[in-house]
Amino acid sequence: MGKDKKRVGILTAGGDCPGINAAIRGVGKTAIVKYGMEIVGISNGFSGLVDMDVNLMEEKALSGIITVGGTILGTSRLKPFKRSAGEEDADMPKIIKENYEKLGLDAIVCIGGNGTQKTANLLSKEGLNVVGIPKTIDNDVWGTDVTFGFDSAVGIATDAIDRLHTTANSHKRVMVIELMGHHTGWISLYSGIAAGGDVILLPELEYDLDHVAECLMARNRVGKPYSIVVVAEGIEHPKKKSAASYIGKKIQKMTGLETRETILGYIQRGGSPSAQDRILATRYGAHAADLIHRGEFGTMVSIKNDTITSVPLEEVGGKLRLVNPDHYLIQQGRSMGVCFGT
Amino acid sequence: MGKDKKRVGILTAGGDCPGINAAIRGVGKTAIVKYGMEIVGISNGFSGLVDMDVNLMEEKALSGIITVGGTILGTSRLKPFKRSAGEEDADMPKIIKENYEKLGLDAIVCIGGNGTQKTANLLSKEGLNVVGIPKTIDNDVWGTDVTFGFDSAVGIATDAIDRLHTTANSHKRVMVIELMGHHTGWISLYSGIAAGGDVILLPELEYDLDHVAECLMARNRVGKPYSIVVVAEGIEHPKKKSAASYIGKKIQKMTGLETRETILGYIQRGGSPSAQDRILATRYGAHAADLIHRGEFGTMVSIKNDTITSVPLEEVGGKLRLVNPDHYLIQQGRSMGVCFGT
Amino acid sequence: MGKDKKRVGILTAGGDCPGINAAIRGVGKTAIVKYGMEIVGISNGFSGLVDMDVNLMEEKALSGIITVGGTILGTSRLKPFKRSAGEEDADMPKIIKENYEKLGLDAIVCIGGNGTQKTANLLSKEGLNVVGIPKTIDNDVWGTDVTFGFDSAVGIATDAIDRLHTTANSHKRVMVIELMGHHTGWISLYSGIAAGGDVILLPELEYDLDHVAECLMARNRVGKPYSIVVVAEGIEHPKKKSAASYIGKKIQKMTGLETRETILGYIQRGGSPSAQDRILATRYGAHAADLIHRGEFGTMVSIKNDTITSVPLEEVGGKLRLVNPDHYLIQQGRSMGVCFGT
Amino acid sequence: MGKDKKRVGILTAGGDCPGINAAIRGVGKTAIVKYGMEIVGISNGFSGLVDMDVNLMEEKALSGIITVGGTILGTSRLKPFKRSAGEEDADMPKIIKENYEKLGLDAIVCIGGNGTQKTANLLSKEGLNVVGIPKTIDNDVWGTDVTFGFDSAVGIATDAIDRLHTTANSHKRVMVIELMGHHTGWISLYSGIAAGGDVILLPELEYDLDHVAECLMARNRVGKPYSIVVVAEGIEHPKKKSAASYIGKKIQKMTGLETRETILGYIQRGGSPSAQDRILATRYGAHAADLIHRGEFGTMVSIKNDTITSVPLEEVGGKLRLVNPDHYLIQQGRSMGVCFGT
Repeated sequence: MGKDKKRVGILTAGGDCPGINAAIRGVGKTAIVKYGMEIVGISNGFSGLVDMDVNLMEEKALSGIITVGGTILGTSRLKPFKRSAGEEDADMPKIIKENYEKLGLDAIVCIGGNGTQKTANLLSKEGLNVVGIPKTIDNDVWGTDVTFGFDSAVGIATDAIDRLHTTANSHKRVMVIELMGHHTGWISLYSGIAAGGDVILLPELEYDLDHVAECLMARNRVGKPYSIVVVAEGIEHPKKKSAASYIGKKIQKMTGLETRETILGYIQRGGSPSAQDRILATRYGAHAADLIHRGEFGTMVSIKNDTITSVPLEEVGGKLRLVNPDHYLIQQGRSMGVCFGT
Repeated sequence: MGKDKKRVGILTAGGDCPGINAAIRGVGKTAIVKYGMEIVGISNGFSGLVDMDVNLMEEKALSGIITVGGTILGTSRLKPFKRSAGEEDADMPKIIKENYEKLGLDAIVCIGGNGTQKTANLLSKEGLNVVGIPKTIDNDVWGTDVTFGFDSAVGIATDAIDRLHTTANSHKRVMVIELMGHHTGWISLYSGIAAGGDVILLPELEYDLDHVAECLMARNRVGKPYSIVVVAEGIEHPKKKSAASYIGKKIQKMTGLETRETILGYIQRGGSPSAQDRILATRYGAHAADLIHRGEFGTMVSIKNDTITSVPLEEVGGKLRLVNPDHYLIQQGRSMGVCFGT
Repeated sequence: MGKDKKRVGILTAGGDCPGINAAIRGVGKTAIVKYGMEIVGISNGFSGLVDMDVNLMEEKALSGIITVGGTILGTSRLKPFKRSAGEEDADMPKIIKENYEKLGLDAIVCIGGNGTQKTANLLSKEGLNVVGIPKTIDNDVWGTDVTFGFDSAVGIATDAIDRLHTTANSHKRVMVIELMGHHTGWISLYSGIAAGGDVILLPELEYDLDHVAECLMARNRVGKPYSIVVVAEGIEHPKKKSAASYIGKKIQKMTGLETRETILGYIQRGGSPSAQDRILATRYGAHAADLIHRGEFGTMVSIKNDTITSVPLEEVGGKLRLVNPDHYLIQQGRSMGVCFGT
Repeated sequence: MGKDKKRVGILTAGGDCPGINAAIRGVGKTAIVKYGMEIVGISNGFSGLVDMDVNLMEEKALSGIITVGGTILGTSRLKPFKRSAGEEDADMPKIIKENYEKLGLDAIVCIGGNGTQKTANLLSKEGLNVVGIPKTIDNDVWGTDVTFGFDSAVGIATDAIDRLHTTANSHKRVMVIELMGHHTGWISLYSGIAAGGDVILLPELEYDLDHVAECLMARNRVGKPYSIVVVAEGIEHPKKKSAASYIGKKIQKMTGLETRETILGYIQRGGSPSAQDRILATRYGAHAADLIHRGEFGTMVSIKNDTITSVPLEEVGGKLRLVNPDHYLIQQGRSMGVCFGT
């Protein structure tokens, strides 16, 4: 590829989520229209930088993608700084640096979750001009108030719990629904409150099954015909079972109430992004282009108090943003009678 | 309750599904407005007839319920003709007959699936004036072309598979999704075709895992980046695992392709009914009122070739309507490259 | 383009609707996978045949389009047999015939509404091998029981009316909603019944405003707090106003009830097709490929009693399929208290 | 009604919007569960206080309403401090004060938009203990960063524009869509950006039709096949026409591009609230109960930088929160090529 403009690479790594394409579009349109830069799309995360699977993207390639879920660039979970057994010969960071030079890149945008931002930081320390954009449905990236993908996932989960209400009510059952969140309970907390969950269990909060059972029986005693229990997949439970299955079986045994379980699974991260996620992803993308223009590398775009800003990548890597046990939704939920496990 | 009009009881039994309230409304509005009858709502299926948990319903109680999922009358799985151990004293059919008399009912409408229609037939033989309305998301009631609940479930399942496409494509994975259908594959067939499933496995069709694996590898060889496998919960598999888990693990082992599983679960039967289900349920309900007016008891309303009609209840009970292996969607799917397991 | 297989052109003409891409995919996949044919996509309706704006489509081009609204081929309203003023020199049918030969087409599939099928018939009479596929949200193509696009439009309209219920109820208003349908009231009838409309006015039925006003006042007298009036755009009304505006103003004046109007407009034909429309479009498409294989040209694919078949194109053109005043939904609606204008 | 607890009245006034019921539930559950207060539901806005149309609400009455659009209390536009001609005898503020005493109310929560908060302030000055909760899809209440109803409306509008993309693309048209917003362009700005609108016109920004036409023709020249124009209903235009009709006709005349118009209308404020609106409304409601408990009357609950707080009612009344011409979405939109009219 010949070159007479600043050239910016974009890659997407880690798990996919709604809004990635809106972020790609935000970076690309701002870089092209406002700054006259060139955009190079890198396929399948960091793999594409290793394998040189890249394409020059014109503005036209960015049209119509804001509504599309997943990522048009593809993704992978390759971690170039993590050497697997039997791969000792490949010095991937070195290859990536060489390819970055060969491609004539002036900067690279890494769209991903915690793991991706960690890699982005290491590449930055290797001398590449890196800007990170946080994305995950789990909303657990340290250094920003919110990630895109989260609002869409909360919407899907809320809609699913709404559906459980009708069937739970018809059958007078306890319905247990397990939502995504290995380490954090953001999705469970927000959709649990939004959909009127009666019990909400999060990885950040200890829970006491006797207390949960008592809450459900108390509802039963005052004539409430059914209950909804929302659990994050990462709550403490025996690893042979799913969280939903563990909690559901226990509840049925302890209360005698008919109980059913559902694991919402991968549909939480698919489909067209919500309006708010499209807007957030666009803001992130546009700001990443601004940072590149200003030469502020080694940073990750971030939202603080609804103001766009950035944080140093080295502060971000490896940290998780957990739900604070004093979160206002937990406090307000308790005030309204929601059981959080204790 | 005093009485000077024909009085019709309505109950809903078995699993809930979208459209039941539209059917209740269809019976009730037609009976009240067209025929000047009275409507008695019976709570929680046949239990309500045993416990006399009933209410006179005015037309106003039928307003606004057409959009609501589940059943406003509640449901139960009580089978009055099936004596459980330790219940030998209760002669429920006798109690039901007595209560039917006490309530001054001239007829009773039983909204439910196969099990409910079987009970309805037995009550009819005991001398009660019974009209059945078939309902189930599974679409497997013998004697009618289609049941309400099915279109809504197909819509929800199709939407879920659509979501899996974006995540499967981003990660180049095989996604296995398990849909409801213990004995029949109607939901899997229709939503599998509607959402572009690559492999569709139904309880009615034998499948060969070697063939399935070969289909998936063939897709991989021609550069198709991912595949969607739709399985009905009732396909043959070891009962210790879910169908999705069994198929997913096998596929991953046999093909080496990264595979993930999702079980859609109870959300398939929740939420507001689709427009088509509301219309179908309304037609069924209105026709049930017509049958009562004409004294055609011992019947179940039915759709044949988009024409409303009825069938004798005694022909219905205990039979399942299976997917014919020559079903046009299977034939056309095969012509277009869909793998049905052989 | 070189040629050693049967080659089939596909074009889409007239107004767009959800499901067209599913039909293109149905034709294409069946033709390629089952019959080993080649597919040529013709852009922008009959214009593309005049301008030779065409592309060979491989099977890969058909992947992922089943969920996409609109038409990937584009459409136009060009009527090659209708000579406009100032165009007397262009003998478009002759050009189309020549280009059909040049492209080496063995057959052409024309996806469109009534106007398109009329043109398809004329091209057939000119000697081209033509198969028609009916499509329109209006459901008014003669010769088939149902067209794809209709179920999606009914779903969107039903969802819109559902939304009006909440605002109408909060404000105790009469809400008038105008739905598409210049000549026929299919969308208004189906979504009006599905969403519990209180008054439904169709182009096929005369209406008496005094009667409509009396219906609304009668509802008011028995304490029903609001009413929903569904009107098709094509009902008789002064052409300077929209149907909604005309009816709404009259109702407010005649009844004194606070009345508001909404015209749903173009969103009725946009977005991803419903599961049923995808299935119907797939069936139509697959059957069109079968007809081409069997050499049954000059035909339009058709559904009769849920059985796929075909009708001669010459029987179709220029005729509209109207709602029968005795339609079962009208009869049942009347029985349940719906006002149809008289 | 006898009394031994603090008693709180709740009313909803002005236009309805999604989330009102969630706010009622938030006030009610917190007041009952946390503070042991009593809740009195007042029907139809301030009218219910004049006519004494009130009901004691138990906690059970609050179950299941979080998902329901509109307001279960009903609303009206009665302004008790605005004397209409012919009503000079009724001193409504006096009647309201007397009824407030008769009902034994300790406080009253007024849920509504700008007009309602103005009335709330006047009642507060008359000595009533008033707490306001802002609500409107228009997002234009002064004193808070965001109102519930807005996120739902943006979601509906974004979905509608998404649908227009498919039809605009199929027909190569300019589609003009008019969204709600008499004085402010919040909905148009957010959904215009979220759905990839090409031109966005807001009441807060002057626009130059020549510039708009040039933007559309420039898109046409570079081969972009269609354009989406989003206009708020309140942009400057001749009052005989709708904004959409005025802009659409002008564009078609000035550019020669085929143009179509849609007015989205009342469906923007109907239906089940989004997850975010349910959460926001719940926060507002719970905080209103806290304010009552603490005796902080004459206040309106408010969100500033995602922190719940309150503002004096007298600062709120009669002011509109406008879109700042330097709003970050406008700046970023311009950087990405969106036309805002100049």
